[in-house]
Amino acid sequence: MQLGMIGLGRMGNGMTERLREHDHDVRTYDPKVESRTASSLEELKAQLEPPRAFWMMVPAGQITEDVFKDLLKLADEGDTIVDGGNSNFHDSQRRFGEAGAKRLHFIDAGVSGGIWGLEVGFCLMVGGDAEPVKRLEPIFQALAPKDGYAHVGPSGAGHFVKMIHNGIEYGLMQSYAEGFEIMEHSEFPLDLEQISGIWRYGSVVRSWLLELLHTAFEEHGGNLDDIAPYVEDSGEGRWTIHEAMLEDVPVPVITAALYARFASRQDESYAAKITAALRNEFGGHAVKSE
Amino acid sequence: MQLGMIGLGRMGNGMTERLREHDHDVRTYDPKVESRTASSLEELKAQLEPPRAFWMMVPAGQITEDVFKDLLKLADEGDTIVDGGNSNFHDSQRRFGEAGAKRLHFIDAGVSGGIWGLEVGFCLMVGGDAEPVKRLEPIFQALAPKDGYAHVGPSGAGHFVKMIHNGIEYGLMQSYAEGFEIMEHSEFPLDLEQISGIWRYGSVVRSWLLELLHTAFEEHGGNLDDIAPYVEDSGEGRWTIHEAMLEDVPVPVITAALYARFASRQDESYAAKITAALRNEFGGHAVKSE
Repeated sequence: MQLGMIGLGRMGNGMTERLREHDHDVRTYDPKVESRTASSLEELKAQLEPPRAFWMMVPAGQITEDVFKDLLKLADEGDTIVDGGNSNFHDSQRRFGEAGAKRLHFIDAGVSGGIWGLEVGFCLMVGGDAEPVKRLEPIFQALAPKDGYAHVGPSGAGHFVKMIHNGIEYGLMQSYAEGFEIMEHSEFPLDLEQISGIWRYGSVVRSWLLELLHTAFEEHGGNLDDIAPYVEDSGEGRWTIHEAMLEDVPVPVITAALYARFASRQDESYAAKITAALRNEFGGHAVKSE
Repeated sequence: MQLGMIGLGRMGNGMTERLREHDHDVRTYDPKVESRTASSLEELKAQLEPPRAFWMMVPAGQITEDVFKDLLKLADEGDTIVDGGNSNFHDSQRRFGEAGAKRLHFIDAGVSGGIWGLEVGFCLMVGGDAEPVKRLEPIFQALAPKDGYAHVGPSGAGHFVKMIHNGIEYGLMQSYAEGFEIMEHSEFPLDLEQISGIWRYGSVVRSWLLELLHTAFEEHGGNLDDIAPYVEDSGEGRWTIHEAMLEDVPVPVITAALYARFASRQDESYAAKITAALRNEFGGHAVKSE
């Protein structure tokens, strides 16, 4: 079927390619990418037959909001806007309402799989009304691996589930990270590439993230010498913890994993200075000077 | 080749079966299991040709120590004792020394895979001297899936790596647990069996533990109604954290995961009583009476 893909970054490009491999007719727009089929949203609209489906695959935040607002003006009654980015589910619920007021459909699609999705398929968590979701199912089925797609609930549910998915991801990554750091510091001369390698087969901790870690050790060596210990976050961990607070659910591991990322980005920890100063005050313990 | 398996619980039995499928000649002893080939350690010894290999697959702690001491008396120079249980690596290093003093070999083999190992193979992390490890490699190769075995280092390294493996496992499990609890409490009527199901395919959080969680939801339903929220630990998480403290490595996630298990076992939290009492004292906040 037809789809208008907006955004041809790594994700949008991979998804377009995968959809075309499944014989879908994907028209594309990206202000900066030559391979696009349309040089404007208006032209993209003209290339699609109604009822149209526009898939936004652009960074969450202001860019998503801008494209959404443009589509809101541009689209005709009965058209569907899909947001495949990592938008906050509250924003998606609001956009669902704004789209509905113009008799447009809005679908929030959580997409996991990263740059590997083209090869193995993207896990898809979809939220929205039954009718447009059902209509676009050939698209979702083509993007996802077998059994890797579900309509998980009403508007917002897709991005909510994707948010939790990413919160879990923070905890999983930090779990491996801590274990490997203990091994790196240990009394044994361990080969961490070898250990991550054998754990991929038959162990309880085998996972896709572990496979990626093994690949990273292969590429960068066991010391990861050329990788700085600096970890960004793109917000979904924070939202997960915020949601946990709204629900009174204790999430110590996901929280600690986010804080470990914050700590990784500090040139110096003011809290550490405070603690050092206090040890000096009450116990006369030496402080290091800067 | 020949092997004497001591302990025919779920693990020892599965390993015996897998080794026999690979045409190894496994003789067995367990005081309580009828299918054994020998009714005593002495008889087991008599059934094996020197240099013998005894594989202890018994619970870590006193039972392992008792069996080890019996083997120390019984075994002949050149024989090898393998400990496949979850012993503390310090104990394994000590046993290596005690065995060496009697000209016996000692190998610490970390085994992962649980009750599924018979089918897919057991991930094997082996520590010890090169000569006996090399000699027993046909056994290790048969137990492990392809590429799932390595000689990771000298005596103690096998159980050290297995300890870290289990520490990571604590963090991974708690990460999933927290994410699913937020979803369980959320405003959306989510089908957690469905979500764990699609995450198995193409998502970044796919793993064997997630597959097991999906199976658990299939068996017990999304509310896990018949499962009590009570989680034991068998010590490897504690040892991991202890080791991190010896190395000055911060492991907030693995620590929080262990503490979540402690909390799960408390009928009542004395700390919660303290905090409630203090809120009452300074702010007049109401306390619940017991």
